[in-house]
Formats: sequence, C-alpha cells, structure tokens
Amino acid sequence: MARAVVLLSGGLDSATTLAIARDRGFECYALSCSYGQRHVAELEAARKVARVLGAMEHREIEIPLGQFGGSALTDDSLLVPEDGGSGIPITYVPARNTVLLSLALAWAEVLAADAIFIGVNAVDYSGYPDCRPEFIAAFQAVIALATKRTVEGAPIHLEAPLIELSKAEIIQRGNALSVDYSMTVSCYQADDRGYACGRCDACRIRAAGFIAAGINDATHYRDRPL
Amino acid sequence: MARAVVLLSGGLDSATTLAIARDRGFECYALSCSYGQRHVAELEAARKVARVLGAMEHREIEIPLGQFGGSALTDDSLLVPEDGGSGIPITYVPARNTVLLSLALAWAEVLAADAIFIGVNAVDYSGYPDCRPEFIAAFQAVIALATKRTVEGAPIHLEAPLIELSKAEIIQRGNALSVDYSMTVSCYQADDRGYACGRCDACRIRAAGFIAAGINDATHYRDRPL
Repeated sequence: MARAVVLLSGGLDSATTLAIARDRGFECYALSCSYGQRHVAELEAARKVARVLGAMEHREIEIPLGQFGGSALTDDSLLVPEDGGSGIPITYVPARNTVLLSLALAWAEVLAADAIFIGVNAVDYSGYPDCRPEFIAAFQAVIALATKRTVEGAPIHLEAPLIELSKAEIIQRGNALSVDYSMTVSCYQADDRGYACGRCDACRIRAAGFIAAGINDATHYRDRPL
Repeated sequence: MARAVVLLSGGLDSATTLAIARDRGFECYALSCSYGQRHVAELEAARKVARVLGAMEHREIEIPLGQFGGSALTDDSLLVPEDGGSGIPITYVPARNTVLLSLALAWAEVLAADAIFIGVNAVDYSGYPDCRPEFIAAFQAVIALATKRTVEGAPIHLEAPLIELSKAEIIQRGNALSVDYSMTVSCYQADDRGYACGRCDACRIRAAGFIAAGINDATHYRDRPL
C-alpha cells in the first residue's frame, strides 16, 4: 500500500485532504505542527480527526516559529483582525507552508512515502503567498532535488487536492466522503473546548462556505457568526 | 546596513560563511538549529563563533527531526561510519537543508533581511543531495514565491558562497579573514569539550583540507587523525 504524509492542522481543509488521501488508497501518516499558535484546540481536533479518518499514525512536532514573531497567530502583542480587510493579513505566519512542507518531506523520506498531501486552497489564499499553485510547483521542484530518494528513485509527489476548489466545493467534497466537520477547528481564536469565535477571517470564510455549499454548519460557536 | 540570516552549525564551513557575510558588509543574524544531534558540542561552538565573528544576534531553535529517525546523526541505534565508504552516507539527515533553509526564511522575512547564507559546499556534498547547486537554485525559486516580501518587493537572496570551493579553498578563504578554526567543531561524534574523534568522515575531510591548504590544523583532537 502506497504511503502518504498528510499535513493535518485540525481545520476543515486538512481534514478533507486526509479523507481524500484515504479515499485514493493511501496509507496515511498525519503530521501536525505546533508553531506557537495561541490556541491548542486545533491540535486536539487534529488528534480526533486523525483517529476518526483512519490515519495509520499521527505525529505532533513543536516548531518554535513564534520566537521569530511577526504574526498575530504566534505573537501575543498583535491582535487577530475581525474586520476582513485587504492585503496580506497579519495572521500570515512567515514561511509557514515552506516550514511545514520541509518537515513533511523529512518524515516522508524516512517512511519511503510516495506522496505528501497539503490542504492549501484558493480561498485560504486570500493573500497568503505560500498557498498559490506556483508555490506548490516550486516546492515540488525542491523535493525532486532535495532527498536521497530522488537520487536513487522517483521523487515524492506533492499533492494539493484542494488548490483549485472554493470553500463550498471543499465542504461538498468532504461531505461526500462523510467527514464530520464538527470535530474540526478553523477559528484563529478558538477556546480550549474548540468553540469558534464566529468573527475572525477563518470563521467568516468557513461559515460562508457552509452556506454556499448548502450544507448544515455543525461548527461549535461561542457566538453564531455575524 | 543590509541584514542577512546566516545558518551557523558551529562547524568550519558555516563559520567561514559567517566571516564572508560580515566581510561583505552584512549585519548578520546567526541561526543554529538543533535537530536531535548526538552531540551538543557543535552548538557550544556556534555560540562562540557567533560572538567572536560579530553576529548581531544568535538564535537557537530546537527541531525534533530525530523523532523521524533514519540518520546516524539523530538515531542512536545507527553507528557513525569511520571507513569512508561510497554512496549517500548514513550520516545524511533527511531533508536537513530544506528544513534549515525554511526556518532561516521564516526569520529572514520577519527581520526584513536581504539575504540568507548557507555554507554548503562541493566537498561536503559527497553524496548529500541537498548540497548540490541545483538544489540551492530550486530553493531560491521557492523563496521567490513563498513569502509576503516577494509579493511586495524584491525576493530574499539565497547565498551559498562556498558551493564551488574545495575544503582547502574554504580554509584558505577563512584564514584570510582571520577565522580561528580551533573554535569550530566538525566531528560527527565530538565529546562534550568539543574534541574531535579524528576518524569519522567529517574529521577525515576536514583534516585533509588543512593539509591541502598548507595551514596548521588547530582542531582539538582526542586522537590525531589516522
């Protein structure tokens, strides 16, 4: 059975990505990275998602990116915005997907995995440079040169199955694969129970996605979305 | 003054790289990553090198790559080879330079640095896929797409000033810049004082480099090289 490392944040997108990888027949090794986020509810959600969606193994790795600062997600002195806004949001974590993919690559090489799955998508892009298709293509080129395996055999394939999907399409795809989204946490400022604020950019995009998909939003909210 | 993040292991190559970056006028931010190495002597050396060679700041970051296994440098069940040998050595750490560069990129973005320096070179290559010039070029392409800065301005430049140099040429270059190599540790199995074994691949390459350079080898050895 072909193996895949699946980056799993505990949010809606990565849960859908894991379901897709499983549906495609991969034996999945889920990797969650804590990079100094304010909330740990997402990691709790990742554990549950990995178990329920049948990951063979789930590893958690602590990367102290927060010590570099520069993001509202890792720096307590910066506020998480609740007003939409334009440009690259302050919730952007410097080089995040580059770091996540490099760690996934390290594990994939040791596992002799054939693929790495990451749940980046067009909507989440919303200004994040490392969610663009051309970024994924560039990282695939690095993979093709970076590892022992690529000297000795075929390179590991980088899969971003959500990249061209809207949030509504992602939810429809996961729904068809019986993903229970109530166990996922997307909110940038979820409480310890995993209850969402309903106000931050991540909550807004997610809630709008359920409406557009015509699927009931089972998210646990502290307050219903505005 | 332009800023640069310099990856600093505490070894001969990265110390030379820091000296070159300083000589070129950069304000240098040294980054050392501990990824589950067996020895901590290299990190002690990195602290000293950063101080002596005038880094503006020195950060250490712990990346538990060892939990993935697969390398004699991070897995206690694998022995460090002392017999030269051919092919990719077991001291290869999966995806190491990809991980190191991604972390350097994260810090460089926060610092608004103009460059990242890494001390990979042709001799250290000796089979390591992520020391090749084409790997460096591929990672430069990732940098050009991965960060907020590349959306808003010129990309961070990835510099590998040693990549075409032999070990002897590196030592001559560092010597001309007054680098005191006695404070650096290259050995894969240095003891807690930083004394080198004189037998592992890293020691062999280093010792041969001093001889070829015609420069006195001030390395602290437990036993003189064979």
